Amino acid sequence: MSSNIRVGIVGYGNLGRGVQQAIQQNPDMELVAIFTRRDPGPLAEETGVLTERLSDVEQYIGRIDVMILCGGSATDLPDQTPQLVKLFNTVDSFDTHAKIPDFYEKVNAAAQEGGKVGVISTGWDPGLFSMNRLLMQAVLPEGQDYTFWGTGVSQGHSDAIRRVPGVKAGVQYTVPVQAVIERIRSGETPQLSTREKHRRDCFVVAQEGADQEAVRRTITDMPDYFADYDTTVTFITEQELAAEHSGMPHGGFVIRSAVTGNGSKQIAEFGLKLDSNPEFTASVLIAYARAAYRLSNEGAVGAKTVFDIPLGYLSPKAAEVLRRELL
Amino acid sequence: MSSNIRVGIVGYGNLGRGVQQAIQQNPDMELVAIFTRRDPGPLAEETGVLTERLSDVEQYIGRIDVMILCGGSATDLPDQTPQLVKLFNTVDSFDTHAKIPDFYEKVNAAAQEGGKVGVISTGWDPGLFSMNRLLMQAVLPEGQDYTFWGTGVSQGHSDAIRRVPGVKAGVQYTVPVQAVIERIRSGETPQLSTREKHRRDCFVVAQEGADQEAVRRTITDMPDYFADYDTTVTFITEQELAAEHSGMPHGGFVIRSAVTGNGSKQIAEFGLKLDSNPEFTASVLIAYARAAYRLSNEGAVGAKTVFDIPLGYLSPKAAEVLRRELL
Repeated sequence: MSSNIRVGIVGYGNLGRGVQQAIQQNPDMELVAIFTRRDPGPLAEETGVLTERLSDVEQYIGRIDVMILCGGSATDLPDQTPQLVKLFNTVDSFDTHAKIPDFYEKVNAAAQEGGKVGVISTGWDPGLFSMNRLLMQAVLPEGQDYTFWGTGVSQGHSDAIRRVPGVKAGVQYTVPVQAVIERIRSGETPQLSTREKHRRDCFVVAQEGADQEAVRRTITDMPDYFADYDTTVTFITEQELAAEHSGMPHGGFVIRSAVTGNGSKQIAEFGLKLDSNPEFTASVLIAYARAAYRLSNEGAVGAKTVFDIPLGYLSPKAAEVLRRELL
Repeated sequence: MSSNIRVGIVGYGNLGRGVQQAIQQNPDMELVAIFTRRDPGPLAEETGVLTERLSDVEQYIGRIDVMILCGGSATDLPDQTPQLVKLFNTVDSFDTHAKIPDFYEKVNAAAQEGGKVGVISTGWDPGLFSMNRLLMQAVLPEGQDYTFWGTGVSQGHSDAIRRVPGVKAGVQYTVPVQAVIERIRSGETPQLSTREKHRRDCFVVAQEGADQEAVRRTITDMPDYFADYDTTVTFITEQELAAEHSGMPHGGFVIRSAVTGNGSKQIAEFGLKLDSNPEFTASVLIAYARAAYRLSNEGAVGAKTVFDIPLGYLSPKAAEVLRRELL
């Protein structure tokens, strides 16, 4: 008899695909079904996995231990998490930082109503980066911390480029300013403007006959997205875009520079360098799905964040093994 | 009325001094007394703090919320933690990795008997490094992780140098091999020998008339301590030793290099660069003293490790503030 953790995937884009792959790396996990708002037929064929309409999800009550929600933060998760957490334990990567407090309250109320656990806002930021910000601040109260993102593809900024008239396709990389990171690593605690922390590099395929100089200016002058940054625009061919810019790398750093005692400098840093942003986020979701399952088995209910869950719950190994091998 | 966390310090060496300083940075903490096996008179004068004989500690039952144990792992903590955790919540930095499972069992039994919480083996390794090893392995199951220490002073190796005939004084730095770290950061997962990971740099003050070449060979050939490493021995004056080698810097890295999906490389790294090893360890002890206090208030009993405690317990901030500001 299997004692695997039975999971479902809700939403099958890049993140959902990453979750399906990550389950292969975790032998204590078992994928029961994928739920979609699309026609499930073609998706079942594509994935080789039982695929159901999301509207039929209630049939799986009692047959799935944790639902891994792979929708977007803008329109999917604000509705899906509160609805589904009444029926299933859930884990999601809701990442609209400013709306997390409100989202937490809604998910918590629904989870309490359903007697389930809803782990919200996992991934790497929010998620692993948040954990490191908390840990570093708690240990080193007198200091300054910095978060840098990149080098990596920003979906929102890439979308913004593609809406510019004359642009056929394009991708935007957020690039942390290395010289500033080195200053912080060497013990400085500078006050930094937006422009000083990150650069934005755009690779654009122009439509035939488009005025490249006008396209460039429209991008670099775009408020909120680009105007506050040093932005480069490089025009490339569609072939170059496909060959060199189809990956989804990302990463970044959380660095805290602090003092203790009579001025001793203490610097802590956590960094990620990711070939695949969605596959990494998916891997974090899986670890927290394991935690949600265990918390629920222990009788916990309500919304939980990465701040609420002991690290031991993320590992498939028993506590005594962790103490022996990793402490 | 004060709702501060009332702490005691047991043992006043470099670590105890660091804890006293760290308490100044944490306004929710209040130092009640220092406990020592020495004559408390001179120590009270030196520290300006109420100082008591360790044998009088029972008088403080109910007046101290958490005892921060600052003794050594070789002879102090194996006895002190199990004894004191019957009477008080405790936190320690027991760091003999191989003996942690046994230590855990003893502390757990004593803490259960006393109805107290004993947080064991905090600091940075074991401690923050252990947490990162667990987190990275749980999120990225297919990979390899590496721990590097330094550049920093190793007390045990410095002691070994000072026992060599002809040596008046000396200090040993553990130095991670930077070229290997760069290989790992770039995605390689080499199998590394002891010699390939760390170098040992010794700065030695020779006794007058000592045979420096003999001293050098005795050090570099010393089994366990130096023979398995590339070791350098530099002879310096007492003045140089005092001027340039009196600090206690340390640090290191935990790096995990892993793959997800169809071979995407995912690299995670946590690093510390510390001017003062004891002050940093002390700062970690303080954060876990806060956690011990809260866990105990919630009715928890027994031995706990960094794997068992949610990160939110380390911060003086309320959960809703953490979600708003740091998630």
